[in-house]
Amino acid sequence: MEASAVQPHGGDLAAASALFPQAPRPWIDLSTGINPWPYPLPDIPANAWTRLPEPGQERALCAAAATAYGVADPALLVAAPGSQILIQTLPFLRPPGHVQVLAPTYGEHAPAWARAGHQVEQVAGLPDPQGPLPEVLLLVNPNNPDGRIISPAPLLALAEALAARGGWLVVDEAFCDLMPALSLAPRIGRPGLLVLRSFGKFYGLAGLRLGFLLGPDGLVAAMADRLGPWRVAGPAMLVASQALADIDWQAATRARLASARQALQRALTGAGIVPVGSTDLFQLVRSPAGRDLWADLAAVGIWTRRFPDRPGLVRIGHPADAHDFGRVCKILNQ
Amino acid sequence: MEASAVQPHGGDLAAASALFPQAPRPWIDLSTGINPWPYPLPDIPANAWTRLPEPGQERALCAAAATAYGVADPALLVAAPGSQILIQTLPFLRPPGHVQVLAPTYGEHAPAWARAGHQVEQVAGLPDPQGPLPEVLLLVNPNNPDGRIISPAPLLALAEALAARGGWLVVDEAFCDLMPALSLAPRIGRPGLLVLRSFGKFYGLAGLRLGFLLGPDGLVAAMADRLGPWRVAGPAMLVASQALADIDWQAATRARLASARQALQRALTGAGIVPVGSTDLFQLVRSPAGRDLWADLAAVGIWTRRFPDRPGLVRIGHPADAHDFGRVCKILNQ
Repeated sequence: MEASAVQPHGGDLAAASALFPQAPRPWIDLSTGINPWPYPLPDIPANAWTRLPEPGQERALCAAAATAYGVADPALLVAAPGSQILIQTLPFLRPPGHVQVLAPTYGEHAPAWARAGHQVEQVAGLPDPQGPLPEVLLLVNPNNPDGRIISPAPLLALAEALAARGGWLVVDEAFCDLMPALSLAPRIGRPGLLVLRSFGKFYGLAGLRLGFLLGPDGLVAAMADRLGPWRVAGPAMLVASQALADIDWQAATRARLASARQALQRALTGAGIVPVGSTDLFQLVRSPAGRDLWADLAAVGIWTRRFPDRPGLVRIGHPADAHDFGRVCKILNQ
Repeated sequence: MEASAVQPHGGDLAAASALFPQAPRPWIDLSTGINPWPYPLPDIPANAWTRLPEPGQERALCAAAATAYGVADPALLVAAPGSQILIQTLPFLRPPGHVQVLAPTYGEHAPAWARAGHQVEQVAGLPDPQGPLPEVLLLVNPNNPDGRIISPAPLLALAEALAARGGWLVVDEAFCDLMPALSLAPRIGRPGLLVLRSFGKFYGLAGLRLGFLLGPDGLVAAMADRLGPWRVAGPAMLVASQALADIDWQAATRARLASARQALQRALTGAGIVPVGSTDLFQLVRSPAGRDLWADLAAVGIWTRRFPDRPGLVRIGHPADAHDFGRVCKILNQ
């Protein structure tokens, strides 16, 4: 069938059903980069729902996040109800200027900066720290959707050059739980270096809504002041404080996702489909010539992510179990 | 004991324990205006936690809220993770101007407008719709902490006069579930009329974080655009969609809270303490001469709300059961 409207994000199964009314249900949703093996929910006491979250709970959450991310001091991070609201709000924390976004990447960054009056330029490569620089340079590392990674050294050089002129390097590390060695979180505190972290993807709890901004303490305080008190729901603080401290689960999950990536990659290459890029949470592939892989999968109830401006590319997340994995393989090999 | 730091909000029991380390635990927390008999939590399916909230779920939530509040069209309201974040964000949706806040009232409004560069004036009474008007007039109805109520007619006249010059009337109806007849929600849609609603207080689920902005569709869309997608957590949408549609529970709760108000009022007047103001969720009282009621209650583990700038005033919420009620009465009568 022909599908006209392109969804701006994965995960919208109502849209999937509207576009493919004949597809078998329930949908296998591989359209997001969310871990399908979530952190097991602890019992949530009633007062997490009934009471206003207390400042002490938020301090405990930030302490757990600082430890998990390797940030020296919990005062260098602030929690918010999802990294998306941080993406939306950050551009308002400095006067309009010239912003470069390393593209292609997650589609919400450029419009967020434009909304706040900045002049946004999408660039294909990193600028030279010695050359002309924007006021703000933003990138996603590892990148979504192609998994491109950039090592810390050149980013720190850029952060220093940007900071010297009052600028910012903003690194969205939404998928960096998979590769902690890549994270700039341990370097947080220096001027002009900002990092965004997402809780929901790696911990598989995207509905809970939790994200963090890491940066110099003044900027973190400005964000907290902008978003106000009781930003994060009580149940979210309770679950996340536990998950962020659970080093064993984190290690086991990294291993499981790395192994799942290999299995998915084998299935794809075995079907003659070569990944264009990947992380341990998703594969980006190009439809083989003469085939619309996205539509073929959707027709049988498997929802993946395509991209409005990059026809033929499909992002595929992990099937949750062997049965779903088998269904995907069957279509890949058709 | 002497307590130096004054808490800016109720509900912070860690602060209570720091100020009154000898007080018996657990605390009886009467420091907030939150219903102590919460809406019973339904079973929350795992995918409310694991999946990104879908646009269809948000539409269902807004439809339930529109029905509950008497708003003609769900497009005239937007959901957010708490009314607080709406209070913080709304002032940025218009250029800086002259803002009047009907005072004394909830302490977060004036600083929120000042933060966005507005010139904020606290006023003791409503302006004359025919006289000089600010760009924005903000009030809480019923008011917190004194329960003062203003009927719709003068407010609608003011809204019209303000709108005629491009201004806004903003009414925070955080406690208006108690008195639906007072609400301007059914008049929403006309230019310049904005209403804030809080989910957590009446439904007793403050930890869930949910609030609504009601207003003209363009303004509601601007707020949604400012806060971004996936604003409200999946579990919050699920619980609230059910609670907002539960007319029987709402009616029973209104009756229960009205009766609880009478009981608390009788206990106070019986102890010679005359309420200064009240709603069905709290009583505002003045400490009898020569007595610090707030400190007397805190010393025995009952936490109430005092006000930095209004010494002697104490706001008291409902004890959750007969045992707690008895403990409060005992201290009142000492």
